[in-house]
Amino acid sequence: MPEVRNHTFDELSIGQQAESTHTVTMEDLRLFAAASGDHNPLHLDPAYAASTRFGGCIAHGMFSGGLISAVLAMQMPGPGTIYLGQSLAFRLPVNVGDTLTVQLTVADKQPRRRQVTLDCQVSNQHGKTVVTGTAEVIAPAERETVTITPPQVHG
Amino acid sequence: MPEVRNHTFDELSIGQQAESTHTVTMEDLRLFAAASGDHNPLHLDPAYAASTRFGGCIAHGMFSGGLISAVLAMQMPGPGTIYLGQSLAFRLPVNVGDTLTVQLTVADKQPRRRQVTLDCQVSNQHGKTVVTGTAEVIAPAERETVTITPPQVHG
Repeated sequence: MPEVRNHTFDELSIGQQAESTHTVTMEDLRLFAAASGDHNPLHLDPAYAASTRFGGCIAHGMFSGGLISAVLAMQMPGPGTIYLGQSLAFRLPVNVGDTLTVQLTVADKQPRRRQVTLDCQVSNQHGKTVVTGTAEVIAPAERETVTITPPQVHG
Repeated sequence: MPEVRNHTFDELSIGQQAESTHTVTMEDLRLFAAASGDHNPLHLDPAYAASTRFGGCIAHGMFSGGLISAVLAMQMPGPGTIYLGQSLAFRLPVNVGDTLTVQLTVADKQPRRRQVTLDCQVSNQHGKTVVTGTAEVIAPAERETVTITPPQVHG
């Protein structure tokens, strides 16, 4: 099983970055639809989606929010992080087959509460920014290494 | 199959509300973990989670974001809505077994672009507010009724 080590508040520096890349599949959208209850056919039904302005299935906006939160939880700061808040601006549609890169950058540190502000950007394979946002977290005080067991699900 | 009718910009009024209730299960968290890539054991491994300050598995913060976006997409404004942005403040942990109520309230309408601002609140079965936020959307211009086919997935 993979192991993940966190970054404590003291280890984080302004400008530090973490990145993750993911290619969006129809299975992702079925899983997100099942988890969220958003069964809008724009995300699930290729025939319906082809009749809309988007010309095909697009990802749920909050799917990109989920990818951002995964980088916060799994990479930086990682396990032990407390999620305080998130803003998201959905700038361009995400199509099935797009390869998304999530990039987080430490923008501010407030030592009193170990609070960290991170700029969040999601871009596609054409270099276009699809989602921007800001995350507010409390970073962990202690180093921790966690064993990851991916969930067994089938979409 | 269930059918969902949207609310056009002209049909929405300030103060109008939509609500949805959902009880959080471990399967929800496995599905959200699979969809987002956030496999943090705080959400998936009861033994690990019991060793943390939370005392058991809690939902991903962005899971509540997904529930909010589902009410926007499925109820108000519903199909045809364009999601522009979302802010979220995670105020209290959501435990497995909690029954969450998502309530959206139309807070502002800007006719030039059919833009609508909605206040978002998620509360638990104890009446405590767990997440608050604000959604910005473009409401549909045209009435539309959409047939919903829930995705087939197994967590």
